[in-house]
Amino acid sequence: MINQTLVGVVLELRKNKQVSKIYGARHGIAGILKQDLVDLTDYPADKLELIAKTPGSALGSTRDKADDEYCKKIFAVLKTRDIEFLFWIGGNDGASNCGIINAAAKAENYELHVIHVPKTIDNDLLVTDHCPGFGSAAKFVASAFSGVNLDNASLPGVYIGVVMGRHAGFLTASSILAKKYPDDGPHLIYLPEKPFNIIRFVEDVKNVYEKYGRCIVAVSEGVADEDGVPIAIKLSKQIERDAHGNVQLSGSGMLGDLLADEIRAKAGIKRVRADTLGYLQRSFLGCVSETDSKEAREVGVQAVKFAMSGDVDGSVVMKRTGDYKISYELVDLLRVAGGTKAMPDEFIDGTNGVTDAFINYVKLLVGELPPIYRL
Amino acid sequence: MINQTLVGVVLELRKNKQVSKIYGARHGIAGILKQDLVDLTDYPADKLELIAKTPGSALGSTRDKADDEYCKKIFAVLKTRDIEFLFWIGGNDGASNCGIINAAAKAENYELHVIHVPKTIDNDLLVTDHCPGFGSAAKFVASAFSGVNLDNASLPGVYIGVVMGRHAGFLTASSILAKKYPDDGPHLIYLPEKPFNIIRFVEDVKNVYEKYGRCIVAVSEGVADEDGVPIAIKLSKQIERDAHGNVQLSGSGMLGDLLADEIRAKAGIKRVRADTLGYLQRSFLGCVSETDSKEAREVGVQAVKFAMSGDVDGSVVMKRTGDYKISYELVDLLRVAGGTKAMPDEFIDGTNGVTDAFINYVKLLVGELPPIYRL
Repeated sequence: MINQTLVGVVLELRKNKQVSKIYGARHGIAGILKQDLVDLTDYPADKLELIAKTPGSALGSTRDKADDEYCKKIFAVLKTRDIEFLFWIGGNDGASNCGIINAAAKAENYELHVIHVPKTIDNDLLVTDHCPGFGSAAKFVASAFSGVNLDNASLPGVYIGVVMGRHAGFLTASSILAKKYPDDGPHLIYLPEKPFNIIRFVEDVKNVYEKYGRCIVAVSEGVADEDGVPIAIKLSKQIERDAHGNVQLSGSGMLGDLLADEIRAKAGIKRVRADTLGYLQRSFLGCVSETDSKEAREVGVQAVKFAMSGDVDGSVVMKRTGDYKISYELVDLLRVAGGTKAMPDEFIDGTNGVTDAFINYVKLLVGELPPIYRL
Repeated sequence: MINQTLVGVVLELRKNKQVSKIYGARHGIAGILKQDLVDLTDYPADKLELIAKTPGSALGSTRDKADDEYCKKIFAVLKTRDIEFLFWIGGNDGASNCGIINAAAKAENYELHVIHVPKTIDNDLLVTDHCPGFGSAAKFVASAFSGVNLDNASLPGVYIGVVMGRHAGFLTASSILAKKYPDDGPHLIYLPEKPFNIIRFVEDVKNVYEKYGRCIVAVSEGVADEDGVPIAIKLSKQIERDAHGNVQLSGSGMLGDLLADEIRAKAGIKRVRADTLGYLQRSFLGCVSETDSKEAREVGVQAVKFAMSGDVDGSVVMKRTGDYKISYELVDLLRVAGGTKAMPDEFIDGTNGVTDAFINYVKLLVGELPPIYRL
């Protein structure tokens, strides 16, 4: 979806005659530093439309974190090209970087307008109702659990699916959309917002297994114990951190395997399978929510409109009204950069489920899944 | 796809006036044993069409293996209902069971016609050109690697994707369809048909990483060392076998994690991620090859036509002519039950790749992927 937003920004900028040049920075600020910029001013619109539908980030991504020194270096590059606007499409770390860059620009009286444009499958940005990218990733998760539930019904056992989202449970919770019939999975959903107790987990699985002869579990990669220590980290041999201090939670099957071992050992159930849904959640070709796709484009368009409206910096947020209309607002960068959003209490049902309020929140973001039917 | 075949069998049987009753056995022979049969004689056709499009197996699956005792018990059930035809939709183990049941029926002069109808995402049945179910699973694998390649290009590193297929490499090899540009991944493809050497693997990854600054690896769950011992089994703490003696290769992230650890330790590359594609490969909602869907229906139709053509038993196989036409034949059950098919040599390029002959073999089975484009 990030490419939809990129194309939204570029095509909207072209409508403004005062915009003489449009550059894309490869791998974000890392590309500015290296002067690795691609001129998008006259890039063919039909090619841009193809890029808009392509997964991943056409410009590339970065995990670099800006500081004053870093800002000085990129400002030097930006100034030689008379750059007045910086659009950053990204999540929390992006918003945080935008805040740092904005403050540094102000400090040296460089009139650079910084607009953060939201994008994250984790859906964990503050203020905004939801984030572009989330709806399509949630569709992937729901489609995965829908299929896995049918597969597991035909050859019963315990299935554990580990879902992305870091310390926010939105993506894991979206597995609930796989449920059509009352005995369908996922039967248990564990979110990072609630302490994960492994003894209670084994009991939960045993209870479901006794009732249905099978059990489907959705568990967030970021589940943590009572002391807030993520289960995955407790058991990790090597802990890898990026420049933002984030620990690697994805790209390993460890958490799922550990939980499966627990069930085999403590619940006495033989057929136990664990999948870690992995990078497919954020990149799988062809799994797109139409609503997400449209909104991702629109948030880019709106970002430009805000930028052109006056002397502003900020983060674009989406407000939801009724069932279902989205309006766009620009809020202070620091309101978004300051933290991450977790699932609110009214979306969480006890220690292993989600509420109807969450289903109502998420179903329109994902759209209809292909129909399924049972004998 | 198994449901397409089921519906093909049922609707074609209904065209034959001599067929007075059609039963579906829940969980295959296990359901016959328990008299858990569902009457499909007049089941609404519109509902059947919905079931045909649903992943998983609507009737359920089994890992039971028939022997003389087992056959006696199921014959007792079948005879009380005057069953004359048994259609078994399945893979190698299904074909093997069909052979056993057929022989047992002949031994006691029970005139039961046994027709094996092919279905396996592993694509490892003998005689047939390919198997229903494979094309859609191959589309999933190609779509997964296409997205992951784009994701990895935007944030470079090493990505290892572990693919199903047991001891046949067809599904892993299908990842090649993700490649559009010359530097796209997968850059390395490891198939179970060639011995897997972990030292050479590390060297291969280092070489690709030096060339492109990143590396995408597709590796089969069934890769084995020079002595034929699967890498996953060598490192498994508990080995789980089903009634057919098959070892659990799926439903664990262990192989991917081990290979990622090797790269981190021996190639000195920091950003290494491993995903095990898991059960999504055979059940993901909405990822369907149109060719596969049509052929899965047709193989069910043809199975009935063969059954009605005379005093026959056998396995339905697909023959390919030209580019591209499929004809259907019935061959002796024992020709299919006797073993599994591996990737032929002309499909394999050295120790870490596939040939154009394989691409030509697989691309029509999968069909077009959504277009992607790069800046």
